[in-house]
Amino acid sequence: MKLNIALLAGDGIGPEVIDQAVKVSNAIAKKYNHEISWTPALTGAAAIDAVGEPYPDETHAVCEAADAVLFGAIGHPRFDNDPSAKVRPEQGLLKMRQKLGLFANVRPTFTFPSLIDKSPLKRERIEGTDLIILRELTGGVYFGERGRKDNGNTAFDTMTYTRAEIQRLAKKGFEMAMARSKKLCCVDKANVLESSRLWRETVQAMEKDYPEVTVSYEFVDAVAMRLVQWPKGYDVIITENLFGDILTDEASVISGSMGLMPSASVGTKTRLYEPIHGSYPQAAGKDIANPLATVLSAAMMFEDFDLKEEAQAIRDVVNKSLAEGVVSEDLAEGGKAYKTSEIGDWLAKNI
Amino acid sequence: MKLNIALLAGDGIGPEVIDQAVKVSNAIAKKYNHEISWTPALTGAAAIDAVGEPYPDETHAVCEAADAVLFGAIGHPRFDNDPSAKVRPEQGLLKMRQKLGLFANVRPTFTFPSLIDKSPLKRERIEGTDLIILRELTGGVYFGERGRKDNGNTAFDTMTYTRAEIQRLAKKGFEMAMARSKKLCCVDKANVLESSRLWRETVQAMEKDYPEVTVSYEFVDAVAMRLVQWPKGYDVIITENLFGDILTDEASVISGSMGLMPSASVGTKTRLYEPIHGSYPQAAGKDIANPLATVLSAAMMFEDFDLKEEAQAIRDVVNKSLAEGVVSEDLAEGGKAYKTSEIGDWLAKNI
Ligand SMILES: CC(C)[C@H](C(=O)O)[C@@H](O)C(=O)O
Ligand SMILES: CC(C)[C@H](C(=O)O)[C@@H](O)C(=O)O
Repeated sequence: MKLNIALLAGDGIGPEVIDQAVKVSNAIAKKYNHEISWTPALTGAAAIDAVGEPYPDETHAVCEAADAVLFGAIGHPRFDNDPSAKVRPEQGLLKMRQKLGLFANVRPTFTFPSLIDKSPLKRERIEGTDLIILRELTGGVYFGERGRKDNGNTAFDTMTYTRAEIQRLAKKGFEMAMARSKKLCCVDKANVLESSRLWRETVQAMEKDYPEVTVSYEFVDAVAMRLVQWPKGYDVIITENLFGDILTDEASVISGSMGLMPSASVGTKTRLYEPIHGSYPQAAGKDIANPLATVLSAAMMFEDFDLKEEAQAIRDVVNKSLAEGVVSEDLAEGGKAYKTSEIGDWLAKNI
Repeated sequence: MKLNIALLAGDGIGPEVIDQAVKVSNAIAKKYNHEISWTPALTGAAAIDAVGEPYPDETHAVCEAADAVLFGAIGHPRFDNDPSAKVRPEQGLLKMRQKLGLFANVRPTFTFPSLIDKSPLKRERIEGTDLIILRELTGGVYFGERGRKDNGNTAFDTMTYTRAEIQRLAKKGFEMAMARSKKLCCVDKANVLESSRLWRETVQAMEKDYPEVTVSYEFVDAVAMRLVQWPKGYDVIITENLFGDILTDEASVISGSMGLMPSASVGTKTRLYEPIHGSYPQAAGKDIANPLATVLSAAMMFEDFDLKEEAQAIRDVVNKSLAEGVVSEDLAEGGKAYKTSEIGDWLAKNI
C-alpha cells in the first residue's frame, strides 16, 4: 500500500515522540512492503513562532491532501498564564479539528499485563478493563460563541449542540457498540443542561434503530466517580466535547501511565492519530519522554487502513518492550530508564 | 446555645439519612446542653408531588428564618429520562442555592483509618489525603441563559461568570489556604474558555493580597487525572460550578465510599449542610442507606457554630462505629450489615 501521511509534530515533546512513531512505522512499511511518504507541517507554538499562526493554511493543505495525519502535541507554558494572549497554540488544535471536520475522538482505555501494578488503582478493579470513550470533538463549549461584557468584567462561553451533531457522533457509538459488547453509555448532565437534554432525547430516539444495543444514561459527575470505582462496568461511552476531555484524561490513569494511551480522530476529510498526553514542556528536548502513546496511535492508523497484521505487530512489539523493561523514566521505577530515541530504535529493530 | 435548624429531607433516601443526623444532633444537644428546634420543610420531587413546585416559597421562608439548613438529597428517576419534563426536582436545588445565596460549596475529602483498604486506590496513594474542594455554586453554566432554537433542533447553555463572583469564591479559598497549608490550586480550562481566563486573571490579581499563599493554576482535565494519581498533591482547590460538580464526585472515591463525604454550603443568608451523595432512589425506603455523610454534615454544622467539641464528638463516634463494624450494607463486605436506623441509634447512644 502507498500511504501519504501528514506529520504534525507540534510543541514540547511532540517532535521527539513523533520521531519514534515514524521509525516504527517505517520498519513496518519495510517488513510488509508498504510505502509511506511523510509530509511534515507546522502547528502550535512552533507555528506561531515561525509564521504567527498556530494552524497555517499550508498545514491545512498538507493535511487535506494526506491519507491520514499523525500528530504529536500542542501547547506551551508561555501562553498558559497569560490570559490576554491573542494567539494561542490551542487555537491551532481547535481550528485543525474544525477545518478537518474531526468530529469524533476515539480514546480506548485498556491495561497492559506487565504494567498493571503501576496503576494507582488496585489490580482487581482494573484487570481486564477495555473501554472506549467516544468524545464529540467539534461542538459544544469549545466552539460556541464566547466573549466579554461589562468592560471585561463578565465572561461567557456558549455550550451548544445541534441534533445533527449528536446523531453523527451517536451513530458511531452505536456502531462501535454493535461491533463490541452491545453496551452503550451516554454521559450527560441532563438534570441541569438543555444541551444535555437534547443529547439524551436524540440518543433515545436512535435506540430503535439498534434494538440489540443496551443503552444507559448517566450523569457526568456520577461517571467521574464510577470510572475509577469500577471501569469494567463500561464498554462504549459517548459524550460531548468538554465532558469527554475530562473523562478521557481521568480514564488514562487506569492504565498506570498517560504516556501509553493513543487516540484516533475521525473526520469528514481525513483521520488523525495522536497520543492523549500533552506537550509536557518540562521534558522537551531531554529525550526522556515516553513515546509509546504515539507509537500506539500509529498502530491505530494502520488498523484503520485495514492493515490489521501491521497494527498487531506494533502492539506486540510494544508489549515486548514493556515486558523486557525497555521503558522510559516514567515507568522505570528505579530500574534502567531508556531514552525516548533508544526506545524507538529498539522497537523498530524488533518489528 | 439555641439553634433553629431547617430540615429539608428531600427525596429517595433523604428522609432516612436525615433522621439519623437528627438523632445524633439531639444526642449532642442533650449532652452539651443545647436546644435545637427542627423545622421540616418540603423540597424536590416530594414538594412537586405535594404542591407542584420543588422549592416552594414556604420552604424558602423556613430556610431564611433558620440559623442553618440540614439537607438530605434531591432527585427522582421518574424525571431523569424525560427530557421534556417541565418541572424537575433539581430545579428546586438550584433555586434554593440561588435564593439563599449559597455561593460556595465546601467539600472536604479525607480518609478513614479503618476504611482505607476499601478504596479502589492503593493505600500508599491516599493515606493522609486531606483536601478541600471549594466549588462555586451559584454561577456558571448552571445559571446562565439556556434554551432551544431551530424548532428545538439546537440547544444551548451559557457558562458565565462575573469578576465579583470569582473574587467572592476565591477570597474564601485564599482564607482557607491561609488557615491550612497555604497552598491553593485554581482549576480551570483557560486554554479554551473565556470564563476560565477571567477566573485565572481574577485569581492572579488577588495573589498579592495573600503573599504567603502559593497558588498553582491547572487545567481541569489534568486535575481529573492527578486527583486519582496523587490526591496528596492537593490541599485547597477552587473551581467553578460544573468542574466542581465533576471533581468533587470523583474525589469522593478516594475515601472508599461516597456514603461518607459531607459538605457545607456557605451563603449570604444562611448555611446549608448536606451529604454529597444523591437521592439513591433504588435504596429508598429500605432502611439500608449509609447515613454517615449526613451525620458528618451535621458535624460540619456544629463546627461552624463554633461548637468544636460537639463536632469532634460526632466525628469520634462515627470513627468508633466504623472501627467496630457498625456499618451499612455498602461497607459490610460479607460481615453484618446494620440498618440505617440502627446505625443512627447506635451513634446517638454512644455520644
Ligand atoms: C489542549 C486542549 C485544548 C485539548 C482539549 O481540551 O481538547 C487537550 O486537552 C485534548 O484533550 O486534546
Ligand atoms: C443534582 C444536581 C443538580 C447537583 C449538581 O449538579 O449540582 C448534584 O450533582 C450536586 O453536586 O449537588
